[in-house]
Amino acid sequence: MSKNLTKREEDYSKWYNELVVKADLAENSGVRGCMVIKPYGYAIWEKMQAALDKMFKETGHENAYFPLFIPKSYLSKEASHVEGFAKECAVVTHYRLKNDENGEIIVDPEAKLEEELIVRPTSETIIWDTYRRWIQSYRDLPLLINQWANVVRWEMRTRLFLRTAEFLWQEGHTAHATEKEAIDEAEQMLKVYAEFAENHMAMPVIQGVKTENERFAGAIETYCIEALMQDGKALQAGTSHFLGQNFAKAFDVKFANKEGKKEYVWATSWGVSTRLMGALIMTHSDDNGLVLPPKLAPIQVVIVPIYRGLDQLDAISEKVAPLVKELRAKGISVKFDNRDTHKPGFKFNEYELKGVPVRLAIGQRDMDNGTYEVARRDTLVKETVAADEVIAKIEFLMEDIQRNIYQKAFDFRKENVTEVNSYEEFKKVLEEKGGFISAHWDGTNETEERIQTETKATIRCIPLDVKEEEGVCMVTGKLSTKRVLFAKAY
Amino acid sequence: MSKNLTKREEDYSKWYNELVVKADLAENSGVRGCMVIKPYGYAIWEKMQAALDKMFKETGHENAYFPLFIPKSYLSKEASHVEGFAKECAVVTHYRLKNDENGEIIVDPEAKLEEELIVRPTSETIIWDTYRRWIQSYRDLPLLINQWANVVRWEMRTRLFLRTAEFLWQEGHTAHATEKEAIDEAEQMLKVYAEFAENHMAMPVIQGVKTENERFAGAIETYCIEALMQDGKALQAGTSHFLGQNFAKAFDVKFANKEGKKEYVWATSWGVSTRLMGALIMTHSDDNGLVLPPKLAPIQVVIVPIYRGLDQLDAISEKVAPLVKELRAKGISVKFDNRDTHKPGFKFNEYELKGVPVRLAIGQRDMDNGTYEVARRDTLVKETVAADEVIAKIEFLMEDIQRNIYQKAFDFRKENVTEVNSYEEFKKVLEEKGGFISAHWDGTNETEERIQTETKATIRCIPLDVKEEEGVCMVTGKLSTKRVLFAKAY
Repeated sequence: MSKNLTKREEDYSKWYNELVVKADLAENSGVRGCMVIKPYGYAIWEKMQAALDKMFKETGHENAYFPLFIPKSYLSKEASHVEGFAKECAVVTHYRLKNDENGEIIVDPEAKLEEELIVRPTSETIIWDTYRRWIQSYRDLPLLINQWANVVRWEMRTRLFLRTAEFLWQEGHTAHATEKEAIDEAEQMLKVYAEFAENHMAMPVIQGVKTENERFAGAIETYCIEALMQDGKALQAGTSHFLGQNFAKAFDVKFANKEGKKEYVWATSWGVSTRLMGALIMTHSDDNGLVLPPKLAPIQVVIVPIYRGLDQLDAISEKVAPLVKELRAKGISVKFDNRDTHKPGFKFNEYELKGVPVRLAIGQRDMDNGTYEVARRDTLVKETVAADEVIAKIEFLMEDIQRNIYQKAFDFRKENVTEVNSYEEFKKVLEEKGGFISAHWDGTNETEERIQTETKATIRCIPLDVKEEEGVCMVTGKLSTKRVLFAKAY
Repeated sequence: MSKNLTKREEDYSKWYNELVVKADLAENSGVRGCMVIKPYGYAIWEKMQAALDKMFKETGHENAYFPLFIPKSYLSKEASHVEGFAKECAVVTHYRLKNDENGEIIVDPEAKLEEELIVRPTSETIIWDTYRRWIQSYRDLPLLINQWANVVRWEMRTRLFLRTAEFLWQEGHTAHATEKEAIDEAEQMLKVYAEFAENHMAMPVIQGVKTENERFAGAIETYCIEALMQDGKALQAGTSHFLGQNFAKAFDVKFANKEGKKEYVWATSWGVSTRLMGALIMTHSDDNGLVLPPKLAPIQVVIVPIYRGLDQLDAISEKVAPLVKELRAKGISVKFDNRDTHKPGFKFNEYELKGVPVRLAIGQRDMDNGTYEVARRDTLVKETVAADEVIAKIEFLMEDIQRNIYQKAFDFRKENVTEVNSYEEFKKVLEEKGGFISAHWDGTNETEERIQTETKATIRCIPLDVKEEEGVCMVTGKLSTKRVLFAKAY
């Protein structure tokens, strides 16, 4: 396997597109904007799902499933919601095909739906239509539900994982008796996302809230986690919304409180998607290919035999078998690549490209000496390890690689958050360095939009841990009490 | 919770519909023919998924994900395939909504797709379009892929789980170098389905092949598992198709064999769906509600405290805590229902309705005597068990209930397979007894269709273990070499 991967410095965007395809993660399909997630990419997504699903269940949520289709009238019930999604909706208008007089397959004009159906871009409307039936009393609250599903947003410019017409995600939708409880829930789920990003993806994130401009369509407050990619652009990795009573009012969802009085229910929704795959790739990978955190790697350890003739391969296979067994018993996923159709060099390249955290190689000399060659993917460092120490070494590396790539990404981000105090400085840093830029802003949509028009940078978030600080807006000179984070973003 | 469940004898169909809703499994949504799968129902489906997914991976399959949408031209490429699905396709024709002059939300006529997209009714066409890129050489084979997904078939008459416009399923799609290997795969997956049905769902199935009439659109051979419901109707629970080279030819998928010669690839596909939920319900449940096999029960053991005042509840809670912990450590899912808002009788009814396999009750007398009352859901038998024997008892019941409900269903089916030798006898048995009817048939579509028109019975399958036996078709008197199984079916 020849990698022939474009270098990041040459063309970061091209490097990304090539890597996604060459590492067997995903590819474009014959359907505009829709991707095929290949088995190796899907295996990483399954690991993400398993970890997140466990965290959701530990915080009291249950999974359910709601319809793919949303009647147009439902979507229209919450004004700002439909406004936000109308321009990117796939619309089902007919329910049958037929043969025309020439034997061509055509849409049967007689099978037109009375009301068009929208392929869900998100499920608030269909879910809140359901919750009206489920919620009568305070005893039915809180209602803590999550759904794993596919959604469709008709994007004009798409990129594998980062922006696709169809994507996979989870969407949590919860209902609460009080405003405070709903806000607590939205904040709790933000913490869950941050913990997942940092502990599993080894990706440091900044937690914050969005400005009004960038809020989810229908939300009162949108919380987000923002990550920094290696090219200095930010990526929104997850959002959690406090929806107030907007959807409860649009769908007339009331509950009888303990005093028997009817009140509207308070809501949250929160989601992460296959976009996280893009974030994972762009946070850690290098010019040799993917770098995967051990916690999400489908193959954590690969063993490559180096041999002449099948007798040597047999001897190595026999030697390796108990090691494979022991590693599996410890819950470490290991692959012994005994394919005789490919040379070791080809295999080394392949597993580097695919980001397997630890590679063991064993040849005749290792057999004679009782050793393995152990290579770690993150640093590419190789060393010779005695066979009886190799398991301990692997266990150490599982921890150490996870820790090391987090630290590397954390240091990179730290170097790339820049405080500026003038618009000139802002534009210079944005142009020359990129990354997050911390600056004072007057809090108005107008200024935010002007900055975006002039520089393409957006306000990624107002960090949750922001310090109160007197200052003036870098653009208008108006008073400001805190800095916000700007960046160009995916 | 009052059950008020219609009795099966009164109206089996009504009993089913009520039970699905009252046991919190699923309900109809505001979208015609699309269901909401509620958390309790979804938890059972998740257990089914986990068990099946493990079996698929153990037989060498990997998961992947393919687009929701299929261009109309793809669907049209395999003639019998489009013929089979054209009449039930949801068609996406537009990609945007807009406000009209009155402020109403309408489909934007300017956002019409050049080519209509079909919401996948099954994914052979989009997947074989992809396989053309993935398969070049014999080294790329076999390709063993599964997808968990939602699909849409626009059914006019729908019923929760049994027949819905949208349903959840898995679809395996494999590619092979030889005909034999593909047939072996199709047969292997049938065995996997049968094993899952019998060992996990406790549902005996008959393995067989479909007649030409009943074959999947595009298949050379369709294998199936058929189960018998308590009302004497059959239910097709899973199918596995040998597709020959039909899709390889339609999508031009060829591989270079070891001699470098190009050949078309051989294919299979196989699937089970949320329909299995309907089969599970109708195989075991009774007039008191669901009966779940322990292997698929989201809650395997429920503990209900019987108390006066919160002091007694506290004492019981303290007593029960170590038991809960120990059961969980053994992998048994247990719920201690300490809600003070509901009476024990209400709780007993609720867990009976929801099919929880084992119920423990503990009151003051049990506290004094060091006992629990243990009730099993399948037989409704109750007994008093010493506290120090209760874990062993529960472990025994997990096995015994699984075994017992399988045996009960097996015995029921055995009593309801009837051999007949004349069409009169056939009609009489069908009318008076139902179940599977084993009869000779002349092998023609015409006779099969005549029987269906006259009696509503269809040939469910030609069993794999059928004996060669000389006979004459019960309708036409023509020679026949084996019996086939007829039934009315869901």
